[in-house]
Amino acid sequence: MQDKEITIYDLAERLNISATTVSRGLQDHPAINKKTKKRIFDLATELGYRSNKFASNLRKQKTNTIGVIVPRLNSLFMSSVLSGIEKIVNNAGYNLIISQSFEQEAKEKTNTTTMFNSRVDGLIVSLASDTQDFSHFDTFIKKNIPVIFFDRIAESIQSTKVLIDNFKAGYKATEHLIEQGCKEIVHITGNTARNVYKDRFEGYKKALSDYSISFDPTLFISNDLTEQSVQDALINNVLKRDKLPDGLFITNDSSAAFALTILKEAGLKVPEDIAIVGFNNDLISRVTEPAITTINYPGNEMGENIARILINHLDGTGDLSFTSTVILNTELMVRASSQRKK
Amino acid sequence: MQDKEITIYDLAERLNISATTVSRGLQDHPAINKKTKKRIFDLATELGYRSNKFASNLRKQKTNTIGVIVPRLNSLFMSSVLSGIEKIVNNAGYNLIISQSFEQEAKEKTNTTTMFNSRVDGLIVSLASDTQDFSHFDTFIKKNIPVIFFDRIAESIQSTKVLIDNFKAGYKATEHLIEQGCKEIVHITGNTARNVYKDRFEGYKKALSDYSISFDPTLFISNDLTEQSVQDALINNVLKRDKLPDGLFITNDSSAAFALTILKEAGLKVPEDIAIVGFNNDLISRVTEPAITTINYPGNEMGENIARILINHLDGTGDLSFTSTVILNTELMVRASSQRKK
Repeated sequence: MQDKEITIYDLAERLNISATTVSRGLQDHPAINKKTKKRIFDLATELGYRSNKFASNLRKQKTNTIGVIVPRLNSLFMSSVLSGIEKIVNNAGYNLIISQSFEQEAKEKTNTTTMFNSRVDGLIVSLASDTQDFSHFDTFIKKNIPVIFFDRIAESIQSTKVLIDNFKAGYKATEHLIEQGCKEIVHITGNTARNVYKDRFEGYKKALSDYSISFDPTLFISNDLTEQSVQDALINNVLKRDKLPDGLFITNDSSAAFALTILKEAGLKVPEDIAIVGFNNDLISRVTEPAITTINYPGNEMGENIARILINHLDGTGDLSFTSTVILNTELMVRASSQRKK
Repeated sequence: MQDKEITIYDLAERLNISATTVSRGLQDHPAINKKTKKRIFDLATELGYRSNKFASNLRKQKTNTIGVIVPRLNSLFMSSVLSGIEKIVNNAGYNLIISQSFEQEAKEKTNTTTMFNSRVDGLIVSLASDTQDFSHFDTFIKKNIPVIFFDRIAESIQSTKVLIDNFKAGYKATEHLIEQGCKEIVHITGNTARNVYKDRFEGYKKALSDYSISFDPTLFISNDLTEQSVQDALINNVLKRDKLPDGLFITNDSSAAFALTILKEAGLKVPEDIAIVGFNNDLISRVTEPAITTINYPGNEMGENIARILINHLDGTGDLSFTSTVILNTELMVRASSQRKK
C-alpha cells in the first residue's frame, strides 16, 4: 500500500550533491550551509523522506519507546498521570505506547509480552486489581529493561516505585472524621490485595484504634468501585443497617460523589447524618453539594516524576539508585461534606 | 545496558534441535509435538528471547503501530475515546502510540513528524484548538498512510472523519432551553475555528432564529474553556449584565458543573433564575445539585468505531471508502438543571 521508501541517496541524486552532505544537512550539521540545508529539507518533505531511525534503532538495540500498562485509561486520575508522563517523555524524544489491563491479570500478562516484543526501552506499570503472580515482569528485569511501578505497585519486585503514603492518607481521612464526631465510619474501597487499598485500610484501622474505636468488620466493604458496586454497597448494605453509620470514607472521588447523590436521595443529610471523605481531589469533588472533603493526589505531578526518573535512568544521568521508592506528598482538603463542627 | 539478543539459533543450539524446528515451535506449527514446543517455550522464556517482529516489520515496511494525537489527554471524554481505541487496536495486534498537542499547532506539527518518522501504519487525530494550517498531514496522505480525524476534524482533508452532528446537538440544546421559557440564552464555548464549536454555535443561532429570538452577540462567549476562563466569563461578564440571562448552554460538562457552582454561590437559583445545559454526559453532570441536562456523547463507542474502521482498512477488509464521514448519534438528556416547566 505504501510507495517505495525514499533514501538519502535518492535525495542526493535529485539535488546533485553527495549522500554525506544530505545526511549531514538532515542532521543540521554546521559544515553545511543554510541554503543547501533548506534545499535538502524542502525536497525531503516533498518526497516524504523519513529518517531511518527504525533501522538505526535496530542496530543500537534502542527503540526510543516507553511502554505504559494501566488498569483502565478512562479515569481522570489515570489520564492526569498519563498526561504528565507523555509531556516529559515526548520532550525527551521518546514515544509512549499505552495499553490497559482492564483490571485482569491475564490481560496484563499479554500486555507485558507485547511490550517486551515491541522492545520498549522502559516500562511503566500500575497493576491490575487481581494480579497475584508477578513473573511476567521477570523477562524485563533479566534483560535490565527498567520497570517503574506507580500507585499500585509490586512490593516484591526490585525496581523503582512511585506512590503516595497511602497509610498516612487513610489515617488522616479517618482521624478527620473521628474529630468531627463520627463513631461508626464505613470504609468502601477496592481490592486490598493492592497496596493502595490495603495501606489506606490499615491507616483507617490505626486511626480507629488510636481513638479507641473498635474496628467493626461489617463496616468495611471491598469491591471494584464501579457505580453498580457502590450502589449495591449503599442500598443493600449500608442503608439497611439497624443503626445507620455517621461517617463514610470511600477511596475515590467519583465514587464519593456518586455515593453522595444516593445518600441524599435516601433522605440523609450530609454531613449532619453522615459525613463523607473521598480520595484524589478531582474536579468532581468540588462541584457537588456539599463539596466533598478529599485527599489531594497530584496525578499530573506523579506522571512527570515517573517519566523524569525513567528518562534520566535511560540517558544514564539518573542520580537515584533504580530500586528507590519515591513517596509523593498528599494533603487532606477539608470541605463541607465532612464539617460537622464549625 | 542490554545483554546480547537471544536468537532462534541460540535456542536451537541449546536444545540440540534445528533452527527451523525452533521457529516452527514458536509459531505453534502443528508439525512440532507438544513436548518439544514446551521445551522451546520454556527456554525462550528463561533466556528472554524476543520474537524478531522488529526486523521482520522493517522488511514488511509495517510497524503494527497506530499513532494518536489529541489536544489533551486529561479529560474524561478524551480518555474514554482512547480507552475505546486501545481496546480494539490491542486486540487486533497493534500498539498504540499517543501524544498530545496541548492545543498548539506548533506542537501538533512536531507530533506528526515524530509519528511519521516512527512509521505508524495509521494516524488518528483530533485537532488542536489553534491549528489553522493542515500541511503537516500531507506527508501521510502522499504516502497513503491512512489518517482518521475525529471530533475536531479538518474538513478540507480527504480522509475518514468520525464525529457527531454538532449542529443538531447545538440546536436541540438551545431549542430545549427555549421550550423551558428561556429568552436570554448565554452560549459559552471553545474556539469556533474548530468544527465542533462552530457547528454547535450555528445550531444555537438557528434555534434562536426558528423561535424568533434575535441573536445577541454579547451573549456569545468563546474562550479556552479552562476553569479560569469560565470563572472570568461568568464573574466579569455574565453576572455583571444589567439584565441577567435566564439560560446557559456551555459546551462541556466539567465547565457546566463548575459554572453551576459559581452561579449558585452568586445567589442564583438553577433552573428558576437560570437554566443550564452542558455537553458530553460525563458522570460529573449527574452528581451536581441540580443534576445537569446534557448531550450524550458516547466517547468510548466513538473510540471503538474509529479503531475498527482503521484496522479494517489496514487489513484490507474495510467496506467503507476511506474518505467517508461517520456521524454518531447523540441525544439530549433532560435533567433538573433546565426543567422549568414540569
